[in-house]
Amino acid sequence: MTATRSMVGFGRGGGGAVFKATNPSTGQTIEPEFMSATAGDVDRAARIAAAAFVETAHRRGNERGELLRRIAANLESRGEALVQRAHLETALPQARLQGELGRTTGQLRMFAALVEDGSWVDARIDRGDPSRKPAPKPDLRSMLRPLGPVAVFGASNFPLAFSVAGGDTVSAFAAGCPVIAKAHPAHPGTSELAGLAIADAVRELGWAEGTFSLLFDAGVEVGVDLVRHPAIKAVGFTGSRRGGLALMEIASKRAEPIPVYAEMGSINPVFILPDAMRTRGAEIAAALQASVTLGVGQFCTNPGLVITESGPAVSSFVDELHERMAATPAGTMLTAGICRAYRGGVARLAGVSGVEQRLSVPADSDGTAGAALFFTNAETFLRERGLMDEVFGPSTVIVEATREKLLDLARALEGQLTVTIHAADGELASYQDLLAILETKAGRLVFNGFPTGVEVSKAMVHGGPFPATSDGRSTSVGTRAIERFTRAVCYQDFPDAALPPELQEANPLGVRRSET
Amino acid sequence: MTATRSMVGFGRGGGGAVFKATNPSTGQTIEPEFMSATAGDVDRAARIAAAAFVETAHRRGNERGELLRRIAANLESRGEALVQRAHLETALPQARLQGELGRTTGQLRMFAALVEDGSWVDARIDRGDPSRKPAPKPDLRSMLRPLGPVAVFGASNFPLAFSVAGGDTVSAFAAGCPVIAKAHPAHPGTSELAGLAIADAVRELGWAEGTFSLLFDAGVEVGVDLVRHPAIKAVGFTGSRRGGLALMEIASKRAEPIPVYAEMGSINPVFILPDAMRTRGAEIAAALQASVTLGVGQFCTNPGLVITESGPAVSSFVDELHERMAATPAGTMLTAGICRAYRGGVARLAGVSGVEQRLSVPADSDGTAGAALFFTNAETFLRERGLMDEVFGPSTVIVEATREKLLDLARALEGQLTVTIHAADGELASYQDLLAILETKAGRLVFNGFPTGVEVSKAMVHGGPFPATSDGRSTSVGTRAIERFTRAVCYQDFPDAALPPELQEANPLGVRRSET
Repeated sequence: MTATRSMVGFGRGGGGAVFKATNPSTGQTIEPEFMSATAGDVDRAARIAAAAFVETAHRRGNERGELLRRIAANLESRGEALVQRAHLETALPQARLQGELGRTTGQLRMFAALVEDGSWVDARIDRGDPSRKPAPKPDLRSMLRPLGPVAVFGASNFPLAFSVAGGDTVSAFAAGCPVIAKAHPAHPGTSELAGLAIADAVRELGWAEGTFSLLFDAGVEVGVDLVRHPAIKAVGFTGSRRGGLALMEIASKRAEPIPVYAEMGSINPVFILPDAMRTRGAEIAAALQASVTLGVGQFCTNPGLVITESGPAVSSFVDELHERMAATPAGTMLTAGICRAYRGGVARLAGVSGVEQRLSVPADSDGTAGAALFFTNAETFLRERGLMDEVFGPSTVIVEATREKLLDLARALEGQLTVTIHAADGELASYQDLLAILETKAGRLVFNGFPTGVEVSKAMVHGGPFPATSDGRSTSVGTRAIERFTRAVCYQDFPDAALPPELQEANPLGVRRSET
Repeated sequence: MTATRSMVGFGRGGGGAVFKATNPSTGQTIEPEFMSATAGDVDRAARIAAAAFVETAHRRGNERGELLRRIAANLESRGEALVQRAHLETALPQARLQGELGRTTGQLRMFAALVEDGSWVDARIDRGDPSRKPAPKPDLRSMLRPLGPVAVFGASNFPLAFSVAGGDTVSAFAAGCPVIAKAHPAHPGTSELAGLAIADAVRELGWAEGTFSLLFDAGVEVGVDLVRHPAIKAVGFTGSRRGGLALMEIASKRAEPIPVYAEMGSINPVFILPDAMRTRGAEIAAALQASVTLGVGQFCTNPGLVITESGPAVSSFVDELHERMAATPAGTMLTAGICRAYRGGVARLAGVSGVEQRLSVPADSDGTAGAALFFTNAETFLRERGLMDEVFGPSTVIVEATREKLLDLARALEGQLTVTIHAADGELASYQDLLAILETKAGRLVFNGFPTGVEVSKAMVHGGPFPATSDGRSTSVGTRAIERFTRAVCYQDFPDAALPPELQEANPLGVRRSET
C-alpha cells in the first residue's frame, strides 16, 4: 500500500517522514501510511492559496454558500467512512461521531445561510456632499473584506467539527479566504476524507485550485513553516496552551505579524452559591459528574474547578459527587499521549500540599482513564497557581471558600472559555459583585447549567480572555467566528461599478446596511 | 512657578524628572515645568482604573453619552486656552487648531450619539427550547462588552484630535473602559488642559475617580511601565513605527498579552492611470502638491509615493509638480526632532542609487522644512526596499512604471492606511487586476481624490494592514473604532434581571437586535 501524500491544491505533495495513526483502543497502528509534507509543499500550497485569494475574495455570497453546502453534502456522502475511520483513530463512540458529523454539516449550512443573506459584512454608507463647507464631504462606503489565506490547525478531540472541515475552515471560507489545513497527526485518515470532501467541492464548483490544501506532518515543522509563510494572513488553532503559545510567538516574529486565533483550553469554573447548594446540592452533583466525565472529560469546556461557598450542605454535596465519580467507568482516551498527560496532571494535583485527593484514577495503564476528584480550600488555591492549569480529562477540583474569599478566588482566575454560576431564585441579586468580576473572566457565562455542550448559533461565544484563547475578542464557534478572518475596507468616492455589490447604490444583493 | 504633576485620578502624582515644552517656531522652552510620573503613579493610576472599570463597564449608554458630551463642552469652554497653548507647543496655525478642536468635540458627540442609540453592541438573542431533542436548546444572548482599562498614547501631529481627548480615549470611554493617557512630551500643556476637561467631566458627573488619569513623562519609562501593568487590557497608540513596534513587543511579552492598536504611518501610494494622466495631469499635479505639502506634510495620510504608468504625459506632469513644489514656502515642523528626521529621510532618499532628486530641501536649519521631490523607475523601487519607508514631511517620490510593472509595484507594497487611484471614466475596468491587489493593501481606497483629510464618520476606516497599523482589522477613526476595546460575552440561560438591559427580553433600551 503506498503512503498517502498531502493534498496541495488538486495535486499531491512530496514525501517527507512517514507515520501512521494509532487505534487508541488497541494500541495498534492503522493503515495506510501518511507522508509528511515537505517544505516545498508548504510553499506551493501557500503560493496557490495567495493566487486563489484574488478569486475567493470576489466570489459572491451565494457562491460561497454554494461551496459550503457542497462541502456539507460531500461530507454526508462520505459519512459512513468518516465515522468509521474517526472511530478507529480516536476511540470516540460512533454515535458521538455521527452527532459530530451532523454538527459539522449543520455548521457549514449555518455559515452558508449567513453569507447567502450577506448582511454580515456590516455595510456602511456615508453619502458625500460636494457643497459642504469648508471642504466637500466625500462619499464613504465600507464593509468587511477577507484577510487572505488562513492556516487551520484542527483539534484532536473533535476530529470532525473542530478539524479539517470544522469551524475555522468554514468561517474562513465564508469570509472569502482560502484555507490550508494542517491535519492533526492523531487522525490523518479522517482528515484526508474531510479534505477530499472539500477538494471535490472546490473542483466541482470550479473554484481556484489554491482554495484548499491539506498538509500532513508527523511533527511540528510543517505547521511552523506554514505560519511563517508570508502568504498566510491568519491562523486558526484549537489545542494545547503550549501549542497555541508557540504559534503566537512565531506569528508575532514574522516580518508581517498576523493574527492567531488559538483556543487553548480552560478549567471552566463552576460557582455554587449557598441557597442553590442547600436546595439542589444532590441534583447539581449528579449533573456535574455527568459534565466532568462526558466523553472521558475530553472537552475544552470540561468543568475542572468547582467553587462552593462554605456551608453545612457542602460536605454532603462532595460525598454525593464522590460516590458518582467513583462509579464512573474508565474510558479510552483519544491518544496514549493524552492519557499519559492526564495521569501526570492528576499526580501533580495530588502532590500539591493542602489538596486532598478524594478519588484516584485507577492504576491500569491500558489507555483508559478513570475519574479524579480533589478537594481544597481557598487559601491553598490562591497560593498554588498550578491549580489553575488545565488537567485535560475527567478530573475536577472542589474549592470551599467563605463569602469574602469567593471574590478573591474570582479575581485570581485566569481567562476562561466559560464560567458557570448555580444560584437559587433571587440569590444572584446579593452576588452582583461576584458577577461583575466573572463577566471579565470568560466568553460565556452559564446560569444553573453546565459548560459542556457548545451550541452552534449566532449568539454563541466560544472564546474568552487569555489564556483561554490567544485573542479574547474572538469566538471560534457561531456566526461571529467569521469576523476573525476579515477587516473593514473603506471606498472613498468610488465609481458605483467598481464597488463591491454590497456597497453599490442600488444594493443589488439587498443586504442590510447602515446608510446616511 | 511649581512644576505640574501628573493627574492620577482626581489627585496629582509624585515627582520624577522635570521637562518643559519647546516652541518650535522660536526654539525657546515654554513655562511651566512638568514632572514625569513615577512608577508609583503608574501603579496607582492602573489600580484605580481597574477599580473604576467595574463601574464604567456598567454605566448605561445614556450615561456614557452624557460623559462624552460633558467632555466636549469642557473642551469648548477651555477652547481659547487650548488653541493658544497648542499653537505655542506645536507651531500649528491657530485656524487649523480651531478646526481640530471642532473635529475633537464633533468626534465626542458622534460617539455620544452612538452609545445613546446603543445598537452598536451587536446584541444577539437565540431563545431556548427546553423540548428540543436530543438535548434542550439553551437560551443564548450575547453582546459586545468593554475590555478593561486602556492606555492611550497620543500623537504629536494632532495635539487635540489624536491626543489626550482624541479618538482612542473617546472610543474607549464609549465602550465602557477607563483610560490612562500618557501625555505626548511635545505638548504637555495642551495635554493637561484636555486632561482637566476630562477629569472635570468625570468628577462633575460622579463617575469613579479611576475613570481617567493623565501621566507626564520626559522619556519612555512611564509608557513602558503602563503597558506592562497587569491592570491594563488594551493600548491605543498613534506615532512612529519604532514606537509602535516597541509597544507591540512589550504587550506580547506580558504574562497576559493584550491587544495593541498602533497606527504607525504610511506612505499612502497614489496611482495615476494613463487616461487620467493625459486628460487631467496638470490638475492632478496641482492637487497633489497641495496634499503633499498640507500642514508641512505632517499627516499620516500624506502621499509619499506616486506611481504613474509610463506615457507621454508623465514628464509634463512631473515638471508641473516640480514647479509647484518648488514654489511652496518652507514651514515650521512640529518639533526639532521631527525636522531633523525629515532632513535625514530626504538625504537618505537622495542617496539611493537610481533615484533622482528633483527638488532639494532648503539648507536652512531654523526648524522649517521645504518640499522635496524624487523621481525613479519601477526597477529601482522594487530593488531598494528603503524607498518604502515613510519620510514624515512634505516629500514625495514619483515612480514611473510600465503597465506590467504596475502590478509588481502594487504587490510589493507594504500595508498602507490609504491607496489612491486616479483614472478617467471607464478606465478602471481595464485595471481590475490592479484594484484587486490594492484592496488587500490598505484600509481606505480613494478614487480621484487625495488621502489627506480623514472624515470622521461611521463608514471611515483609518487603519490598514501591517505595518500601517499593528492590527489591520481595526480603525482608529470613525465609529468602528469602538470595537477595538470590546469583546463579545455570551449569557446562557440567565435570569432576565441579571442580564445587561440590551439583552433583557423586554428590550428596555430599544436597541436593534438580531433575535430568533
